[in-house]
Amino acid sequence: MALNQQTKEQLQKVSTATLCTALFKRGLRNQFIQDVRPLDPRKGNMVGEAFTLRYIPAREDLNPITVFQDRNHPQRKAVEDCPPGAVMVIDSRKDARAASAGSILVSRLMVRGVAGIVTDGGFRDSPEIAALAIPAYHNRPSAPTNLTLHQALDINVPIGCGDVAVFPGDVMVGDGEGVIVIPAHLADEIAKEATEMTAFEDFVTEEVLKGRSILGLYPPTDEQSKIDFEAWRAKTGR
Amino acid sequence: MALNQQTKEQLQKVSTATLCTALFKRGLRNQFIQDVRPLDPRKGNMVGEAFTLRYIPAREDLNPITVFQDRNHPQRKAVEDCPPGAVMVIDSRKDARAASAGSILVSRLMVRGVAGIVTDGGFRDSPEIAALAIPAYHNRPSAPTNLTLHQALDINVPIGCGDVAVFPGDVMVGDGEGVIVIPAHLADEIAKEATEMTAFEDFVTEEVLKGRSILGLYPPTDEQSKIDFEAWRAKTGR
Amino acid sequence: MALNQQTKEQLQKVSTATLCTALFKRGLRNQFIQDVRPLDPRKGNMVGEAFTLRYIPAREDLNPITVFQDRNHPQRKAVEDCPPGAVMVIDSRKDARAASAGSILVSRLMVRGVAGIVTDGGFRDSPEIAALAIPAYHNRPSAPTNLTLHQALDINVPIGCGDVAVFPGDVMVGDGEGVIVIPAHLADEIAKEATEMTAFEDFVTEEVLKGRSILGLYPPTDEQSKIDFEAWRAKTGR
Amino acid sequence: MALNQQTKEQLQKVSTATLCTALFKRGLRNQFIQDVRPLDPRKGNMVGEAFTLRYIPAREDLNPITVFQDRNHPQRKAVEDCPPGAVMVIDSRKDARAASAGSILVSRLMVRGVAGIVTDGGFRDSPEIAALAIPAYHNRPSAPTNLTLHQALDINVPIGCGDVAVFPGDVMVGDGEGVIVIPAHLADEIAKEATEMTAFEDFVTEEVLKGRSILGLYPPTDEQSKIDFEAWRAKTGR
Amino acid sequence: MALNQQTKEQLQKVSTATLCTALFKRGLRNQFIQDVRPLDPRKGNMVGEAFTLRYIPAREDLNPITVFQDRNHPQRKAVEDCPPGAVMVIDSRKDARAASAGSILVSRLMVRGVAGIVTDGGFRDSPEIAALAIPAYHNRPSAPTNLTLHQALDINVPIGCGDVAVFPGDVMVGDGEGVIVIPAHLADEIAKEATEMTAFEDFVTEEVLKGRSILGLYPPTDEQSKIDFEAWRAKTGR
Amino acid sequence: MALNQQTKEQLQKVSTATLCTALFKRGLRNQFIQDVRPLDPRKGNMVGEAFTLRYIPAREDLNPITVFQDRNHPQRKAVEDCPPGAVMVIDSRKDARAASAGSILVSRLMVRGVAGIVTDGGFRDSPEIAALAIPAYHNRPSAPTNLTLHQALDINVPIGCGDVAVFPGDVMVGDGEGVIVIPAHLADEIAKEATEMTAFEDFVTEEVLKGRSILGLYPPTDEQSKIDFEAWRAKTGR
Repeated sequence: MALNQQTKEQLQKVSTATLCTALFKRGLRNQFIQDVRPLDPRKGNMVGEAFTLRYIPAREDLNPITVFQDRNHPQRKAVEDCPPGAVMVIDSRKDARAASAGSILVSRLMVRGVAGIVTDGGFRDSPEIAALAIPAYHNRPSAPTNLTLHQALDINVPIGCGDVAVFPGDVMVGDGEGVIVIPAHLADEIAKEATEMTAFEDFVTEEVLKGRSILGLYPPTDEQSKIDFEAWRAKTGR
Repeated sequence: MALNQQTKEQLQKVSTATLCTALFKRGLRNQFIQDVRPLDPRKGNMVGEAFTLRYIPAREDLNPITVFQDRNHPQRKAVEDCPPGAVMVIDSRKDARAASAGSILVSRLMVRGVAGIVTDGGFRDSPEIAALAIPAYHNRPSAPTNLTLHQALDINVPIGCGDVAVFPGDVMVGDGEGVIVIPAHLADEIAKEATEMTAFEDFVTEEVLKGRSILGLYPPTDEQSKIDFEAWRAKTGR
Repeated sequence: MALNQQTKEQLQKVSTATLCTALFKRGLRNQFIQDVRPLDPRKGNMVGEAFTLRYIPAREDLNPITVFQDRNHPQRKAVEDCPPGAVMVIDSRKDARAASAGSILVSRLMVRGVAGIVTDGGFRDSPEIAALAIPAYHNRPSAPTNLTLHQALDINVPIGCGDVAVFPGDVMVGDGEGVIVIPAHLADEIAKEATEMTAFEDFVTEEVLKGRSILGLYPPTDEQSKIDFEAWRAKTGR
Repeated sequence: MALNQQTKEQLQKVSTATLCTALFKRGLRNQFIQDVRPLDPRKGNMVGEAFTLRYIPAREDLNPITVFQDRNHPQRKAVEDCPPGAVMVIDSRKDARAASAGSILVSRLMVRGVAGIVTDGGFRDSPEIAALAIPAYHNRPSAPTNLTLHQALDINVPIGCGDVAVFPGDVMVGDGEGVIVIPAHLADEIAKEATEMTAFEDFVTEEVLKGRSILGLYPPTDEQSKIDFEAWRAKTGR
Repeated sequence: MALNQQTKEQLQKVSTATLCTALFKRGLRNQFIQDVRPLDPRKGNMVGEAFTLRYIPAREDLNPITVFQDRNHPQRKAVEDCPPGAVMVIDSRKDARAASAGSILVSRLMVRGVAGIVTDGGFRDSPEIAALAIPAYHNRPSAPTNLTLHQALDINVPIGCGDVAVFPGDVMVGDGEGVIVIPAHLADEIAKEATEMTAFEDFVTEEVLKGRSILGLYPPTDEQSKIDFEAWRAKTGR
Repeated sequence: MALNQQTKEQLQKVSTATLCTALFKRGLRNQFIQDVRPLDPRKGNMVGEAFTLRYIPAREDLNPITVFQDRNHPQRKAVEDCPPGAVMVIDSRKDARAASAGSILVSRLMVRGVAGIVTDGGFRDSPEIAALAIPAYHNRPSAPTNLTLHQALDINVPIGCGDVAVFPGDVMVGDGEGVIVIPAHLADEIAKEATEMTAFEDFVTEEVLKGRSILGLYPPTDEQSKIDFEAWRAKTGR
């Protein structure tokens, strides 16, 4: 199920907070990746389908520095295989004591047109990654090589990331707060609904900043709030 | 017990570190809210009396999205009732997996003249909140709606926040490090003492930057240190 | 074993990530101080030999505010005794609920020519410390005076810091990610090797940004990669 | 809403695991108190309506040992006021570093006919409490007096306990695993359903121990499983 | 690589502590499953090859109670497919807030001749499981159905369990302390070495209980210690 | 300051809970070792003066299995040097991922007449240690050899253990709940006071079990309570 272009554009303009609420309304309460943050919170939204990488704990004898001489090492292969426009999502078992990846791999992903990278562990070379033109999300900087604690094992299988289930093809959206996972089959309708919600929230914000009370306005239980919102939509073209 | 204007002005010019020491001298060792930080560390001091909001864990059947249609929902009511000049303090049970509040509510507080907002959970829309002209303190950004994990229950009762007891009317002071809770009955004397301490620390800092040893100076066990400080006070008018 | 000047200069130009890998190759997997970060990530590298300070939990009767009147109090003595060029490393038992030190002591260290300060707890006056011309690393800001939870006990004994063993004289290197501990006897060879590795990584980064695949390049299992790297070294003089 | 006698008897014979599943079917996923265990796992089920006690962090000046000279101190008052047959549930903010209560208070509850006591902190005198004829649940033994960290504040208000919302009158059930909170209005139907489920699980267990596969049996997707269960019910009179 | 019968018998008589040391000597420092304990610490050793089950976080729409009507649901299928003599090892992402399995499934495993079950989460019906004639290891009792937080996904792939890598066929050994993972290719030599070490440790224990110093005895750096051990072996036939 | 024989006998008959309260009255709020429990909770009280052992994190090159061939290795030396009647207290930095010690060393301590052993990490061979006639306290069983994560460094220096300061010679008391640290200079008066308190608590317990209310009795704010207690003392000879 390829990500619809209109859906993608809509998701670039809504917040993870709004998306969380839209998913909450459908009984999905646990789609925000916990305790993961942007290396550079000022980048625009990250949007793309999940391409996953699964790590297990590293056993010392299986993870000497020489493993990377194998061109098929799953970490390196994943970096070359992740489709342009996708988001690489790494299950690091919430263990940030060693890196999930470093700036060279993330640079390669950027050059290949990948839309972003997420781990529930940490990145090394994080100042360099923060400066790249690709959104990246992690728990905290972590300089030790991934071989210290992580063995890359599987590519593009369902994983957990920050206590959230991520299935390949799910739509990942990141903003200045963090990352949300939208189940693939819901992406279009959630994007539409979140766009509508965002229009309303922008209207409410304007009103609140003008001094209006939130009671009756947010949510719009007063009839006047609905009338005013319609007028605002007409005026702003949203 | 309303916050004295002079006390307020004094508290705007001292640090939470200095206040911690002043309270420590009186046997109060546990007044700094743990693991809570400013969304924008460059804002000036937050000072105001505590107006509290207590959350309990959310039970799913009691917390559908429709609860906000009730104008008396405690979260919304609190936002409209918090007095101008006060600081809203939320007991989120140190659970940042869902939001304590978002930018629309915080905007409303700002417009209403509230002095700041503190939670030991997280805020959603945190980049927007960081940009508002109201200090806000939390543990980490958290996009999920508060209904996911929090039910607002009580307004202006004694609470815990970040392992600190907060009684309504206690004086909250926030700076670039975090937030301290000054028991209401001590606010005046602590403000005075911290002001004195700050003058001395500023003097010491100047001396240290000039190359003077801390021994005998900090604390001023050398008589000369006291003499120099008095001269400095005379010179600087502090 | 004094820190060699060439080694020091080399360590100022390599990253903690690269150093971690060099140590990993020698079977040292656990030299990166966990969960500690720079107060100002934009400062250049911190390099210096470890001068340690050990804290134990504070017992109330032994830690009134008056203890600092003793010129030999270990915390104050350590600040005056830490050699210029060294890095003060504090074992705060990973407890950031009270401060390890504040801006006056760190200012004194700066003036005395100390190369940096590290704690696995937190600093108070952290905005002021961040602005000083001395690198400082901690877990998080913490306003309460150290007497609340920490008693300074020993100077320059082997300690733990962030789950890493630190022996006096070990070489500490900090960058925008955090701090690594290089055993003293390895400092020269690690600095050399990391310098070589950095040259190669810079070459690889350039190639990757030009669009080259990492396969065969990183590591350079293709003969052509080695040839290209040698050409790059000749060209760049590295 | 008093606890129905038949409901009570049914709840004495079912497990918290079965009750969790019955609540899960109704969308209540979060009713098992986390990380709390019986002091004596061999006691029979604890069943009773919640009578709550709320603690906030203790401020030192408000919690000297003399506070208990006040006959209306909320902790002591709660012990005398908790109705026979009820379960006292204490919100200790998941902080077991100091006690929630000790053996004298729990003895008094026992003598008064209270059905059990639960805290998400710890009890002191825990070996003595384990030996009493009243079920007690906590996180871990904790010898320090509650005044060290807890101030009893409110009696019989809604609280959180182990990340679960507890409303006064909710039905608490404890067994050898821990404690579940059944919303008051669901107690009767949940007790009935769990009783039915328990009969089926007992049948399944017997069959499994005889060597039958779980496929088609658990759940009973094979028609024969349903037939066999009905025969078993007829035979056993359940 | 089937588990050698002699190896199996040897492993039934050695402790996880001794096995940890034997693996440590080979550079494998991280094979003991962290924070997992026996439900019944008095059972004899558990020995068997790993048969793994991987869980990911449960998404609500994919995990209604009806999923178990599918005979191919991975959790149920795994229970029927796990070979007799093997040990089922579940990757529950160290999340014990919901159950990994309950007594009916563990009973089925027992009847089928499975050698044991391990999860880094928790079991429900734990008192019943503790009473079964099959060793079981977990973090803590947890009554909520696995569907609350866990979705069974993969059977017999490499996993992490309690921060240890577990590959299908690795040899699992559990005792009263916990569970160790022996890489399959090392099982025979480790079992032999641990058997030798155990003989020596038994000798040392006897000597120590008779009053002998550990210096020179443990390890046997005194020649006499080696002589005495040989005599003990001759006498005891070990 | 040797432990007075009468004090020792008194401490053998009072609980850590009572001792905590006696210390709390003197402003010592933090003397109970956190999250440490007896391997065998049914043993009588452990009483003895602290003899300490300090561990730091293990660096791999300094901690091969061969280090124990050094008769002066601090761990082994400490076991031979700990005075009979003392309690060995190990600072394991609250890290139970590897053992602090095993049954052979604890057996040697027992034979040498040592009064007990405490670590804020874990013991290996814990079932064997639990069966020895020496009280032992830890966080949880941990099979990996101490060399994996711990390097024994210092003998009989002040340490932290479970967040409590322990000075050599402090009086350690353990019971079925855990371990408390009594500053050496307070041991006699605390033992006396706790003995008095225990008599009163025993009286109160008897009264409560007979049905008396705690109000006015505990504490004895009713005059009659004091009269009854005196009568009870006369009768029981306490």
